[in-house]
Amino acid sequence: MIYDIAIVGGGPAGLAAALNARRRNLQTVVIGKEEFSSKLTQAHRIDNYPGLPSITGEELARKLRTHAETNGMVFVRDEIQNIYPEEDLFNLYGREHHFQAKTIILATGITLGAEIEGEADFVGRGVSYCATCDGMFFRQKPVAMVGYIREAEAEVRFLAEVCSQVYYLPLYKNPGPVDPRVTLIEGKPVAISGNGQVERFSTTAGTWEVSGVFIERAGRPASQLMDDLAIDEEKFIITDGMQATSIPGIFAAGDCTGKPWQISRAVGQGQVAALSAVRYLDVLSKRQKV
Amino acid sequence: MIYDIAIVGGGPAGLAAALNARRRNLQTVVIGKEEFSSKLTQAHRIDNYPGLPSITGEELARKLRTHAETNGMVFVRDEIQNIYPEEDLFNLYGREHHFQAKTIILATGITLGAEIEGEADFVGRGVSYCATCDGMFFRQKPVAMVGYIREAEAEVRFLAEVCSQVYYLPLYKNPGPVDPRVTLIEGKPVAISGNGQVERFSTTAGTWEVSGVFIERAGRPASQLMDDLAIDEEKFIITDGMQATSIPGIFAAGDCTGKPWQISRAVGQGQVAALSAVRYLDVLSKRQKV
Repeated sequence: MIYDIAIVGGGPAGLAAALNARRRNLQTVVIGKEEFSSKLTQAHRIDNYPGLPSITGEELARKLRTHAETNGMVFVRDEIQNIYPEEDLFNLYGREHHFQAKTIILATGITLGAEIEGEADFVGRGVSYCATCDGMFFRQKPVAMVGYIREAEAEVRFLAEVCSQVYYLPLYKNPGPVDPRVTLIEGKPVAISGNGQVERFSTTAGTWEVSGVFIERAGRPASQLMDDLAIDEEKFIITDGMQATSIPGIFAAGDCTGKPWQISRAVGQGQVAALSAVRYLDVLSKRQKV
Repeated sequence: MIYDIAIVGGGPAGLAAALNARRRNLQTVVIGKEEFSSKLTQAHRIDNYPGLPSITGEELARKLRTHAETNGMVFVRDEIQNIYPEEDLFNLYGREHHFQAKTIILATGITLGAEIEGEADFVGRGVSYCATCDGMFFRQKPVAMVGYIREAEAEVRFLAEVCSQVYYLPLYKNPGPVDPRVTLIEGKPVAISGNGQVERFSTTAGTWEVSGVFIERAGRPASQLMDDLAIDEEKFIITDGMQATSIPGIFAAGDCTGKPWQISRAVGQGQVAALSAVRYLDVLSKRQKV
């Protein structure tokens, strides 16, 4: 099916956008990498979301999700890797699904965990953000996985099937048990290096010879999703007051549009983005009728 | 006392700004014309404030107010008439009080009720927005009062003491009893006219000879509060992404900054404005130490 609106990101901005979109009765899908935003659920106590004093991040995440779901939002767990325009619609390619939508709201949040030295230089030359997508390129080769979120564990399991050696660096609290073929490593990420291709991964605890480094974060820079999307010097998506980006039909809201990072700001921007998407769809349908 | 932040307007934007300001422990006063925003409390049901599904406007207004008050916000009922800068602070003149603050957040909402024909031409020449301020100029003269909100009733009572004749046109539901010296009139406002000074007020039901016309709305154009405040062609306050206005130290948030009018957007902008005010105060205090 072709959705009216595909919302990339299931945090406060994405869920608030979905609520408004559904209240306008649009076919709306929210595509979230995590069931609930880990950035939100990790907050023990939030006291500045107006109207809901002293709430845990998890409670607030559930309230926002339930509110949107009660209004008919569809939530799909996946991570969008690329977006390609095609005439009057957009193709969104996830790890597992392919979506089509007339308009898109990017609400991808921010990438937790600073960029690792060398990371940007080796993207596509050994650095990857999706093991299920790119793992086969590293068949019978040694790789490292840097996991900022628990979701990395499933990816590590897949790599263990395919690669000759898997070094896993979990950077979240209480990591679960890993496949016996996986070697847990320690320290903080320091650098990814090599000569044209990735050859080494170093942490504060040591250096490992690898052909690939997989990085699993809560978000990925939205700028990587699409060519031509205007971003500022800090890699945040540039939007106007109506949350329009440089690409007609694509809107953005929340932390991925820059500071200050406030839940209420993300929520407000998400709802404005949805109204802008509605207006864009109106123009689109009139044009198609001519 | 000199407040750190004076917030003009007690709707969602103002209360959200106050919450953030108080969480930074700043001396914060919210100056509201109404105890609760009538625009908000008149909403029977609000279903798009994320996290609080299907709530009445009155409930939401109380939740926002309580949340800010629990954090130590001071609320004063008054209507600011003018703002004058003075070195590193601002003077805010209300009907009843004079406030001083280092920084200001304008969250005055929108003016309900379209401008009456002739209204703008006769401001200061018979048209006034404050009976308690200007009533004495019309001693022993006939005046009309146009009341868009119940708060007008107290003002009418004051005019009855002072003026030779008071015609009152209430434009809200179920007006209360008025002073026996006041003549209730009917219809919808049509025009204010005269030769240099106000001489006549007309509604769809008739024309009355008056020397003054008082107008009581939920809000008044923020552009009238201060010279030099940059506004757009629709008279909304121009702000940047951090809610800064054209005047350093003055920020604006919510409906007074233009469309789209969404509670969540007003709330988010209010909280961003408070953060900007905090930053401005930091710079101010460093400068004063030098």
